Amino acid sequence: MTEFIPVASQFCALPDPFPMKRGGELRGARVAFETWGALNAEHSNAVLILTGLSPNAHAASHAGNPEPGWWEAMLGPGKPIDTDRWFVICVNSLGSCKGSTGPASQHPDDQQPYRLRFPDLSVEDGAKAAHAVVRTLGIDQLAVVIGCSMGGMTALAYCALHPNGARQQINISGAARALPFSIAVRSLQRESIRLDPAWNMGEYDDQHYPEAGMRIARKLGVVTYRSSLEWDGRFGRVRLDSEHRDDDPFGFEFQVESYLEGHAKRFIRQFDPNCYLYLSRSMDWFDLGECMGTTTARALASLKLQRSLSIGVSTDILFPLQQQEEIALGIAESGCDSRFVPLNSPQGHDAFLVDIENFGAAIGGFLADA
Amino acid sequence: MTEFIPVASQFCALPDPFPMKRGGELRGARVAFETWGALNAEHSNAVLILTGLSPNAHAASHAGNPEPGWWEAMLGPGKPIDTDRWFVICVNSLGSCKGSTGPASQHPDDQQPYRLRFPDLSVEDGAKAAHAVVRTLGIDQLAVVIGCSMGGMTALAYCALHPNGARQQINISGAARALPFSIAVRSLQRESIRLDPAWNMGEYDDQHYPEAGMRIARKLGVVTYRSSLEWDGRFGRVRLDSEHRDDDPFGFEFQVESYLEGHAKRFIRQFDPNCYLYLSRSMDWFDLGECMGTTTARALASLKLQRSLSIGVSTDILFPLQQQEEIALGIAESGCDSRFVPLNSPQGHDAFLVDIENFGAAIGGFLADA
Repeated sequence: MTEFIPVASQFCALPDPFPMKRGGELRGARVAFETWGALNAEHSNAVLILTGLSPNAHAASHAGNPEPGWWEAMLGPGKPIDTDRWFVICVNSLGSCKGSTGPASQHPDDQQPYRLRFPDLSVEDGAKAAHAVVRTLGIDQLAVVIGCSMGGMTALAYCALHPNGARQQINISGAARALPFSIAVRSLQRESIRLDPAWNMGEYDDQHYPEAGMRIARKLGVVTYRSSLEWDGRFGRVRLDSEHRDDDPFGFEFQVESYLEGHAKRFIRQFDPNCYLYLSRSMDWFDLGECMGTTTARALASLKLQRSLSIGVSTDILFPLQQQEEIALGIAESGCDSRFVPLNSPQGHDAFLVDIENFGAAIGGFLADA
Repeated sequence: MTEFIPVASQFCALPDPFPMKRGGELRGARVAFETWGALNAEHSNAVLILTGLSPNAHAASHAGNPEPGWWEAMLGPGKPIDTDRWFVICVNSLGSCKGSTGPASQHPDDQQPYRLRFPDLSVEDGAKAAHAVVRTLGIDQLAVVIGCSMGGMTALAYCALHPNGARQQINISGAARALPFSIAVRSLQRESIRLDPAWNMGEYDDQHYPEAGMRIARKLGVVTYRSSLEWDGRFGRVRLDSEHRDDDPFGFEFQVESYLEGHAKRFIRQFDPNCYLYLSRSMDWFDLGECMGTTTARALASLKLQRSLSIGVSTDILFPLQQQEEIALGIAESGCDSRFVPLNSPQGHDAFLVDIENFGAAIGGFLADA
């Protein structure tokens, strides 16, 4: 099994053993992370970034790795998340294949990949693992925890499991609980992998690899991460040149089909299918209310935060805007300064990656007042 | 290959040969249809219903077939489409497997299924075939052509190809051109069928059948036919009883997953995969502007109609509301009485099948003034 660890990631050993929420434990587990800026003497300027399902810890370039990161425009000196002021940490999620321990990592018993021997993974496990990194760096309380998409769920779990673990949070296109529509989409992505005979109950290798299943899963992801509105402007009904068309009957003819294919090709062999299945299912299970043994609303109201910003996008079909409003309203009940910024970005769920102008203004503005 | 023809469908032979828009021709082809009510002496009370991708011609029960139809609540004596007043015809689309000639039908040369020997199918071919049925029934001009979803495309093609073929149209969750988002969704549905080894370039049989591909395709359809909002109210985060859960890792756990599975099971063996591929692709190709050699707007403005009603739903992600507005505004440019009814039904693209209260009021109100 191939792991895809960015150059110059650092690693933090997790408490050994590391008990998992739904049962089982990890031994010798670790979390990959990267940092930017410097921790101040009071250790009061730390910002933690929790990612969506697929990104690694390389959110932006730095001296150790000059390659642009997945949030390059958002993070750096003078940028909305200003690394001249903040000490920023980005972790690779527990269960991923980008350096943190996950189903593609070696089982300590036999040095063979865990595959389906990996215990059930929950968003809460990811939050606890991220917290271990923060503590290891000598930080008792984060200035800000920032979570995008799945990371928005992890940020809420972080605040719930570690009261006073963060003074402020920024929740971006996140959700306090998985909705049935999103569960349905993810279930279908997982099913397309599981139905691929090459998945073989997780026992694939580089030669026998569930490529067809991963292709469908990724394309379905890209379809639900974006919006109809944006694609009409971008692709319209433009056809491929005849030399780029498929000879197959029903093969690709429109630019949008080839765009999806390009996305799938870049992803299929870069993300481990079992890791994908585990992380995907962890999102379905997430409900901050269930996590805290109460309703979603009460759970949000019980978080100990001084300030909160929840940002969402009206064109997001996967984590619809009502979910970011629910977070903002719920946290406001705790009496904290809770802001809600609904944006009209046309790019859907993925807007935070591309609409830097609007997201940067919202995030930078909130941090400037911090 | 199994065909699924409703009891008591009638059949209309198409002109022989029947030339197809994108090349090739059909010989000995037919269209299945059903009727309700009586044609008046002036032949002026005919209403034609054009369906979405999968329905058959049995829109409602009648003496010959008392089984409820797919639009039972909309169509009948005293109902919004009142069969005491109107002579209503519903056709099964050309290219389908519910009685009309399609890829699952016998090729006249060898009585073997056409499969991929079926010529390219376009929405315009479907419109011409429906027109042949109308003419065969002795009707020169329809009072109203009604099209739902794909049928909304067919209705526009009908009006474009047969000027003065209808005095009025009702376009329901339709579109004047396929958008890239919808093309992407359909492309992914087709790809899931094509990637199933059992599809075998269309050469499957009942024993070796692309069940996995059809399962993914149908579930993806159901996901995009509905809306996040509705499912939250309907399923929430309710789990399946343990005896209904899957033992597979990553198997079904939430009610919404089992709902999708039920939908897929009912569809997989009831709709021919090759027919699905042909009809799906025909929608991607549709653009009323391309059809009439001009822009979409000019094509709509050139339609010869006296009255038009375009209905859409704000929660529709597949044929978004802007598309129904585009139809209404475009047709208004012709100077005809063009109405646009945007609805807030929570059920998404499929709302016309279930939100009978609001759709019935809009359709019934329009027809009452006719």
